[in-house]
Amino acid sequence: MLVGMQIRDATPEDWPAIWPFLRLIVAAGETFCWDPAVTSEQARAMWLHVSPGRTVVAVAADGSVVGTAELHPNHGGPGAHIANAGFMVNPAHAGRGVGRALAEHIIAVARADGYRAMQFNAVAATNTVAVALWQSLGFEILATVPEGFHHPDKGYVGLHIMYRRL
Amino acid sequence: MLVGMQIRDATPEDWPAIWPFLRLIVAAGETFCWDPAVTSEQARAMWLHVSPGRTVVAVAADGSVVGTAELHPNHGGPGAHIANAGFMVNPAHAGRGVGRALAEHIIAVARADGYRAMQFNAVAATNTVAVALWQSLGFEILATVPEGFHHPDKGYVGLHIMYRRL
Repeated sequence: MLVGMQIRDATPEDWPAIWPFLRLIVAAGETFCWDPAVTSEQARAMWLHVSPGRTVVAVAADGSVVGTAELHPNHGGPGAHIANAGFMVNPAHAGRGVGRALAEHIIAVARADGYRAMQFNAVAATNTVAVALWQSLGFEILATVPEGFHHPDKGYVGLHIMYRRL
Repeated sequence: MLVGMQIRDATPEDWPAIWPFLRLIVAAGETFCWDPAVTSEQARAMWLHVSPGRTVVAVAADGSVVGTAELHPNHGGPGAHIANAGFMVNPAHAGRGVGRALAEHIIAVARADGYRAMQFNAVAATNTVAVALWQSLGFEILATVPEGFHHPDKGYVGLHIMYRRL
């Protein structure tokens, strides 16, 4: 755990600190189902939500942004009571509990917002660190879409849909 | 089957013919995970796609629009090889094979576009007509999100994720 880390709501002013590592993660094409060539403007529109969505940042004691997460309804209307969320940890700070802290925060916020469950639509089966983290937080694999993810090195691999009640 | 029906690419000029029945279907809140109070402008932006998405209309012999469908990548980047699609049949023309004809058309187009599979993320378990249609077309239920759909009369019901290879 990163000593002195805090999680707070993101502001538009945080984007210049988020974009460099978000871009790296998306460009790698190993975990996120986003166009690897996404522009800063497109990514910002997809990541920084307006209500009822939320975006947070994890900030180290020195003020640097070490991770970020977003929360929004997974579907609209009759499906809006189930949340979806996304998480990005600055690779320079991986393995220090940032992802887990963000996830625990987002789960608590989602529960407070009245969501009844949380669903991830697209967890690459090869992203074993994430799968293990979600499972340790109570998520189960509801289904695996066969060959749903095209990994740059491993080819077509399964894409998990994960779920937990809140 | 509606005699003389044709399916063609939708144009912006078709929207005034689509919106009245699309609005009815969405407002009913029984099948689509859209905000029932969606505006014409919002719905149009979500339904009429630009490439690589596609939108088609089913047109009766007299020129009236009896149904519409849309096709787009279910995810971006490493998930963009699996299609997602949506279908709306004008309730005034229900039970006449419009939905099946649209689905067969969209499956053929998706295959021609190079998608490897098609996935529906949100089929209300109570929408038994749709579930039976998709199953007859080779889709299987990959998972059912527990209480994933809030039906106006039946309360929280399952939400199927359905899938077929192309």
